[in-house]
Amino acid sequence: MYYVDEHIKNTNRVFPQQGRYDYLRYDMNENPEGLPKEFVESVLKEITPEFLSIYPEPDRFLNKYAAYIGASYENVVAVNGSDMGIRYLLETFGEKGKDVVTVAPSFEMYWVNCSILGLHHVPVAYEPDMTISIDKILDAITENTRIVVLLNPNNPIGNVYTEDELEKVIEKTKKVGAIVIIDEAYHYFYPNTFLKYALNEENVVLLRTFSKLFSIAACRLGVVISNPQIIHYVKNAKLTFDANAIALLFAERILDHPEMIEQLIETEKEGKAYTLAELTKHGYETRDCRGNFIFVTPKHQATEVAQKLETEKKILVKSYGNEMLKKYLRISVGSKDAMERFLTAFFEIDERA
Amino acid sequence: MYYVDEHIKNTNRVFPQQGRYDYLRYDMNENPEGLPKEFVESVLKEITPEFLSIYPEPDRFLNKYAAYIGASYENVVAVNGSDMGIRYLLETFGEKGKDVVTVAPSFEMYWVNCSILGLHHVPVAYEPDMTISIDKILDAITENTRIVVLLNPNNPIGNVYTEDELEKVIEKTKKVGAIVIIDEAYHYFYPNTFLKYALNEENVVLLRTFSKLFSIAACRLGVVISNPQIIHYVKNAKLTFDANAIALLFAERILDHPEMIEQLIETEKEGKAYTLAELTKHGYETRDCRGNFIFVTPKHQATEVAQKLETEKKILVKSYGNEMLKKYLRISVGSKDAMERFLTAFFEIDERA
Repeated sequence: MYYVDEHIKNTNRVFPQQGRYDYLRYDMNENPEGLPKEFVESVLKEITPEFLSIYPEPDRFLNKYAAYIGASYENVVAVNGSDMGIRYLLETFGEKGKDVVTVAPSFEMYWVNCSILGLHHVPVAYEPDMTISIDKILDAITENTRIVVLLNPNNPIGNVYTEDELEKVIEKTKKVGAIVIIDEAYHYFYPNTFLKYALNEENVVLLRTFSKLFSIAACRLGVVISNPQIIHYVKNAKLTFDANAIALLFAERILDHPEMIEQLIETEKEGKAYTLAELTKHGYETRDCRGNFIFVTPKHQATEVAQKLETEKKILVKSYGNEMLKKYLRISVGSKDAMERFLTAFFEIDERA
Repeated sequence: MYYVDEHIKNTNRVFPQQGRYDYLRYDMNENPEGLPKEFVESVLKEITPEFLSIYPEPDRFLNKYAAYIGASYENVVAVNGSDMGIRYLLETFGEKGKDVVTVAPSFEMYWVNCSILGLHHVPVAYEPDMTISIDKILDAITENTRIVVLLNPNNPIGNVYTEDELEKVIEKTKKVGAIVIIDEAYHYFYPNTFLKYALNEENVVLLRTFSKLFSIAACRLGVVISNPQIIHYVKNAKLTFDANAIALLFAERILDHPEMIEQLIETEKEGKAYTLAELTKHGYETRDCRGNFIFVTPKHQATEVAQKLETEKKILVKSYGNEMLKKYLRISVGSKDAMERFLTAFFEIDERA
């Protein structure tokens, strides 16, 4: 009756659960508590009726953000969450039917967007001990490859890459004519960065988000960072108005308060150390996944524990269907207070006879 | 060196002027003043640190919006401004190299997205008297057509379509296997709607925005309205997190206050009537473009008057390079107060010896 793109038509989508506001949330790597109240109130005071009626302007934020990371305006573009960055990058540098190489499991929006856009997703599997072989990644990069994606650290496994490993990937992608996307969603929790490669190499792009450490997932803001040529292409592909003005305002004010950023990092570190120590004390096997999240192996079946936490305690955590991860719960980590609330409920549910 | 999509590579983009906050803005069909202050403050009070840290949930808004327009949840999807709706629709129902028919001039994001996506834009020209021939639109619809776009009213010309004209377009698109996008960005200013066609026909989609009457362009919120099958396809194509939570919250609260919506309509009507009357009194030729904007033919050259308003009066208006429109200024219309500020400056600049 009418034409529908076949890839979009055949993509199966699952949208997230609604009504999460009523729960304690440790399932999506958000900050369970958010930014300091006084800070939020001071930013909200800047929002006037006129401000709301005006189309957003990203440049003031972009100049500030570029300075913050030691780059230039020409190196950065603001997008409606890094989800939007992923989409633009796959649209711009992907080719229908050609390969996008990622490790698997990894952040699902990479393969979802491959499906939508008709790109061929090549997943590189983890070893049974949850390590990833860089040689297997290198072997997966061929003449058919257009894009290689590395999350550093990877969500959910939490492995990271060395500079030496990244340089091998860059070298191989250059040979075959592909770009490398490095996703640093969990940067600051994990302090290393591959920023210098994004700024200096001709085929490397970095993604950052304001949804994790910066705690404004509601606002949707991501930044694509690369050399001016790649940023030019991404700007060609983007909507005229993309990141909204409220996200841009909060982001600017966050950057104005480096001491608050330090405090956010410290708070999460303290909460994570506390959580891992308490779980160990109670005899649990844990894994620090390098981002603001950890794995724990509950004594009872993981999906059942997750279910009971949700129905009996109004607490959300992430469990998995796939073979490698099915014994784990992934727990987002916030402040010590937030983690006390989680642990009390978790021990009560999982240590019950 | 690396693959770049040829259409994205060859698209030329111009991004809007920055620093508009410092001006009185009558150039982009925003509400020059915005929503009532007490209303904005009451909504901002609902925004907590926790609210900001949680990924957005569109469903509560969507249910409320669907009820508001007399439709169902399955008929609507929220997007990051109607720009994002346009992109999704062109990605889903457009085919590379095939035709997208619009009148010209019209809203530029249609042809910009055609260029980005490699769709063939078929512009149907206005008559010299600024009417549009429905027969010319019908003639442009061929076996190569995948999408026909009608803005009702069209921006900037302000022409509208009758039900009889739309029905002819729908009939022709059905024959050739294309969809019809109806863009009602200026609905409420212009009271007629083609909503029933979007809900009842199998190939008609409607776009609405919260940037115009609802006065939250900063927040980015649009709604795509159609039958459940088309909405299903658009959901397949969309980002998981798209419209942000602040936009959704403001939109919900706007819908909670129908009396405020009525007042916004009345205020703009009064401002427009006043503006047209004052301009006529001063001997100007004007055109009511049916949205929240009008044309006026200044006594001096339009681009020069626009330039002087900007530099001497810190006032922004829209002027045109193209032959048909170069004698006009397009003026966004707000309250009588806002228009008094414009008119005082305009008369001073344009009636100067």
